[in-house]
Amino acid sequence: MSKIKVGIIGGTGYTGIELYRWLQKHPQAEVVYVTSESYSGKPLSTIYPEVAQRCDIQLKAFEEIKNQEVDAAFFCLPHGHAVNVVPEFVSRGVKVIDISADFRLNDTQSYKRWYGFEHPYPELLQQAVYGLPELNREKISQATLVANPGCYPTSVILALAPLLQKQVIKNTEIIIDSKSGLSGAGKKLSLTTHFVEATENVAAYNVGRLHRHVVEMEQELTKLAQSDCKIVFSPHLVPMERGILSTIYVRLGTKMDKNTLNAVFTEYYAGKKFVRICTTDLPKTRWVSNSNYCDIAICPVPETMWTVVVSAIDNLVKGASGQAIQNMNIMFGLPEEMGLV
Amino acid sequence: MSKIKVGIIGGTGYTGIELYRWLQKHPQAEVVYVTSESYSGKPLSTIYPEVAQRCDIQLKAFEEIKNQEVDAAFFCLPHGHAVNVVPEFVSRGVKVIDISADFRLNDTQSYKRWYGFEHPYPELLQQAVYGLPELNREKISQATLVANPGCYPTSVILALAPLLQKQVIKNTEIIIDSKSGLSGAGKKLSLTTHFVEATENVAAYNVGRLHRHVVEMEQELTKLAQSDCKIVFSPHLVPMERGILSTIYVRLGTKMDKNTLNAVFTEYYAGKKFVRICTTDLPKTRWVSNSNYCDIAICPVPETMWTVVVSAIDNLVKGASGQAIQNMNIMFGLPEEMGLV
Amino acid sequence: MSKIKVGIIGGTGYTGIELYRWLQKHPQAEVVYVTSESYSGKPLSTIYPEVAQRCDIQLKAFEEIKNQEVDAAFFCLPHGHAVNVVPEFVSRGVKVIDISADFRLNDTQSYKRWYGFEHPYPELLQQAVYGLPELNREKISQATLVANPGCYPTSVILALAPLLQKQVIKNTEIIIDSKSGLSGAGKKLSLTTHFVEATENVAAYNVGRLHRHVVEMEQELTKLAQSDCKIVFSPHLVPMERGILSTIYVRLGTKMDKNTLNAVFTEYYAGKKFVRICTTDLPKTRWVSNSNYCDIAICPVPETMWTVVVSAIDNLVKGASGQAIQNMNIMFGLPEEMGLV
Amino acid sequence: MSKIKVGIIGGTGYTGIELYRWLQKHPQAEVVYVTSESYSGKPLSTIYPEVAQRCDIQLKAFEEIKNQEVDAAFFCLPHGHAVNVVPEFVSRGVKVIDISADFRLNDTQSYKRWYGFEHPYPELLQQAVYGLPELNREKISQATLVANPGCYPTSVILALAPLLQKQVIKNTEIIIDSKSGLSGAGKKLSLTTHFVEATENVAAYNVGRLHRHVVEMEQELTKLAQSDCKIVFSPHLVPMERGILSTIYVRLGTKMDKNTLNAVFTEYYAGKKFVRICTTDLPKTRWVSNSNYCDIAICPVPETMWTVVVSAIDNLVKGASGQAIQNMNIMFGLPEEMGLV
Repeated sequence: MSKIKVGIIGGTGYTGIELYRWLQKHPQAEVVYVTSESYSGKPLSTIYPEVAQRCDIQLKAFEEIKNQEVDAAFFCLPHGHAVNVVPEFVSRGVKVIDISADFRLNDTQSYKRWYGFEHPYPELLQQAVYGLPELNREKISQATLVANPGCYPTSVILALAPLLQKQVIKNTEIIIDSKSGLSGAGKKLSLTTHFVEATENVAAYNVGRLHRHVVEMEQELTKLAQSDCKIVFSPHLVPMERGILSTIYVRLGTKMDKNTLNAVFTEYYAGKKFVRICTTDLPKTRWVSNSNYCDIAICPVPETMWTVVVSAIDNLVKGASGQAIQNMNIMFGLPEEMGLV
Repeated sequence: MSKIKVGIIGGTGYTGIELYRWLQKHPQAEVVYVTSESYSGKPLSTIYPEVAQRCDIQLKAFEEIKNQEVDAAFFCLPHGHAVNVVPEFVSRGVKVIDISADFRLNDTQSYKRWYGFEHPYPELLQQAVYGLPELNREKISQATLVANPGCYPTSVILALAPLLQKQVIKNTEIIIDSKSGLSGAGKKLSLTTHFVEATENVAAYNVGRLHRHVVEMEQELTKLAQSDCKIVFSPHLVPMERGILSTIYVRLGTKMDKNTLNAVFTEYYAGKKFVRICTTDLPKTRWVSNSNYCDIAICPVPETMWTVVVSAIDNLVKGASGQAIQNMNIMFGLPEEMGLV
Repeated sequence: MSKIKVGIIGGTGYTGIELYRWLQKHPQAEVVYVTSESYSGKPLSTIYPEVAQRCDIQLKAFEEIKNQEVDAAFFCLPHGHAVNVVPEFVSRGVKVIDISADFRLNDTQSYKRWYGFEHPYPELLQQAVYGLPELNREKISQATLVANPGCYPTSVILALAPLLQKQVIKNTEIIIDSKSGLSGAGKKLSLTTHFVEATENVAAYNVGRLHRHVVEMEQELTKLAQSDCKIVFSPHLVPMERGILSTIYVRLGTKMDKNTLNAVFTEYYAGKKFVRICTTDLPKTRWVSNSNYCDIAICPVPETMWTVVVSAIDNLVKGASGQAIQNMNIMFGLPEEMGLV
Repeated sequence: MSKIKVGIIGGTGYTGIELYRWLQKHPQAEVVYVTSESYSGKPLSTIYPEVAQRCDIQLKAFEEIKNQEVDAAFFCLPHGHAVNVVPEFVSRGVKVIDISADFRLNDTQSYKRWYGFEHPYPELLQQAVYGLPELNREKISQATLVANPGCYPTSVILALAPLLQKQVIKNTEIIIDSKSGLSGAGKKLSLTTHFVEATENVAAYNVGRLHRHVVEMEQELTKLAQSDCKIVFSPHLVPMERGILSTIYVRLGTKMDKNTLNAVFTEYYAGKKFVRICTTDLPKTRWVSNSNYCDIAICPVPETMWTVVVSAIDNLVKGASGQAIQNMNIMFGLPEEMGLV
């Protein structure tokens, strides 16, 4: 079998370079171009010297490659940018995985409210598949356009899916407390991500229902529960590079002990290589760092109806670029874990 | 006025040295001895070279100082050790501030269950005052024995007191998600606190109702609410030295907007120098680092009855040694903030 | 005695806020204004929320305060800015401590080469005193204009002064390898100081003779040695907030053992409170963090004529704002350590 | 070709697990056992949960496997332990790569002085090949016993080899200032590696000629130079997990400019995949993190005869386990970079 020809559009942010590095190790993929408007004509090593003399590539402007033939295109552009260029690729039959939020939401109104733009391709929103492979494997395998999930949503939806599908928790009393490393804030400079301000600091932000990922999570959780889900979501920044730990508080309808809950999760994720149920210890972000795994533990709270679910992912891998490759594998009929273990 | 003669029993852990350093700057206190069984006879600078040629002191064995006259004694011993030596000091009329948990709980049963020992002085438990000055100023000013609160309880009780006293939240649906720096785990070596394991990592531990501080928090919250409080508590370790951020989820009985909630807190803490209500930003541990302040923000969650309260303290200062000095100031009729700003 | 009225010009960078905080604890100083062009009219707590309700002050534009009477003025402006406004203060008899490099160099040519501007006040360069109190106490006590030393030069000159003054090392074979925390790079945003790039990284920069501090160091070292000194200097950034560790390699003219070398240093720094000679351990930046101390150890290398001198300071305190206050104390006839211990 | 059967003796330290993880990705190697005396009978995931359900293996006691057939055996035991068990493997014809220091030194006297034991197999010391592939490729390809270099020596010898071989620097004036992340100190608990002590700290240790790696470096540098080399070596610990940056000061015999020096290095390392000469930027440990590369820059210092060479490696990869695999590849006639890129 000849290799999948892959293009990366917007390759100089943290998800772009992460994707590029993982694809170098993929036995069935070949990166044919990486675009950058600011650095076109220069080698990628100008920005990421670690690829020098190893797997360097010359960056191209989008104009140069837009007609170049590829089998798969990954879009790592900022929100609101992919939306304008993806449709042409889709219409040419290129399999597209968009890492931005531009095709994640089903409702055009949400784009106006949360992302500040009028979505120009409502019909594509219907066609796009939400790329969480553990839930949507079948649809992804048929899809031309996959919307790769957000980092927080990945950590949260995987932790809640078995409970919602089994309908054992109250859909409107879900409290999510997430802690993210700073690569989640991207490469754009800001005082928040300035070393001296970020080190020795923990801070909450967009507490309650202010973060854009709330609408994305509620959309997918509602599908799973088949009834409206409502969440309270508090993201936090912690002084590390990678990783998201989500601590989720849910209310059981009827009491269930730890073994029963573990069984619900183990059954739900049977055969899903990248989800590990931790039955003895609690997950740590360190355990999933630089990997595509999502580790989950379920802790019913004695004397109450609450259960705490803790999940850990690497935000740049399972929360972005690793999951994008997992989606590519499924779209091309390859083993899901190829190039990822 | 002559200075308060102060003794520190158990001065070589992180709370001991923190206490010693702050007391050096206190205009009305004079440290007359610091004890250490392992290092008696050696200068404190053997263990903490930063005090060399600056404010060094020779460490003494407990036996050497137990009859030496002091006005105030701070106990920084591990749980279960202070309980055996504090009573003799109290009986001599020395004002005691115990930083361990040995006199925090009112119920002797709790010591058996949570700390693994039979409390030998139940009558002293009744006499001991829980040293949270913003709540118990009057009692502290009359006390001979003050039990200095735990670090997590300080960050949590201050964040909940106004709401419970006003009886505007549901006492049995309180969810607390706390993030602590690693000095909270003390100076004892462990793999959890080994740099290579702790850096680039966030981890939950003792999730639900497993942490010893649960009983301490529920005891004090119940007093405030005048009815039983029940909490779910998840502590986390984050890769920094100092600071606790507690993100607390409470359910309002009737809707209240942010301004009203801010007013409840501002009124409750009127005149309390060390609590700051953040009306615009959310607290960060960096803002309270190396200070005795507790910063609090209240965020009602739109479309729900939940409110998120975020509080930040320095676990070694307001969560331990700074608060101990604040208690000393009150016990001796000094301005509460003396030596602390 | 009435308090010294102090003005801070340019108070919103890291040296400005550090200075402001230390001055709050100074028993004989009173900050009457802090200037900021970008934030004038706003409280300092807008930028540094930790001062809110504690020691806040309203920021002023320079125009508003330039005629306001003060006894001392600290300039915390970027290089090339203080030079234009300092002279007017000096001419009015205000005692000036300039934390920028604008008056550190004796030679106007050096400003052109290293700082890119023609120095407009060559005569003031002659009048300005290099504010390293352990070396120049007398001159500082008489000065109207003190040029506060750079952070690297402070850590290096203190480590070399006894050896150069005794003329026991070769002046032209001095190799300096310095490691600095990221606050030394200031508050200005850059990729170098972006958390994700700076954490888990050590990097050299401006290796050899490329850093501006080379000329400053050679100027002062040459004065000490009374003959030309030539250095090789390699600064590094390490992933921490504060601190400089300088490891300095010098060549002895004749063999000297550790005790003899320690004696040279101990004698030279007799009575100098803020220099500590470490005779048993090697200095760590942690020991001097948030303090005005400079810790120094001297290690002759067996089988060679080389000696390694290791020094540690907090770049924001002894390397900037603490030393500035030490200079103020001397200029006003106060005990050198007032407000600094 | 059937896979190389590999055994790992002592697999639970940081070099052991690093080796195990890299070998999982190696297309021609198969780990048949991993030993641990403390954890025998338990799965590796007991200690490193990240391998759970991914590439777990049951740990064995040495006694269980000592007669089991393997093609290659990696020893990751503490110094002084490998020496007793390696010979039996060698005599059976197993190709051995020892990551400890037990076969690195040619001189038995050095073991007594630096490692505190009488070396029981002097004849094996003569047979062992120092496993730095960029220098000793030929010998390694013929070897049965390879002594894998120390982490500091790897970063230093690669940076000096071209200059010494060309005989353009003075062999007795070599000053080496190295900065290492904390994984270099291993998994053993100590106050030095306790998070609270290690974060926000830089410290020198064993300055001058006190570190065990001095004798190892001088041995190999002397071979390269074909005359006695003498070094001054100052290792430092910096608050990060991985990486060594060595800043090396050497004296040229005759002036050479940067281009000429770059050419010397480029020529020397022609065809050596894992050494990259940085001609524009200076190396950073971040660039080589989790890789087998060694990045080197050469900076002649204007106005002097000194040249600064800066090198960066990942101490656990090129400084230990990655290099061990590189050696295995060579010993088995595989492409040097197999499984390492």
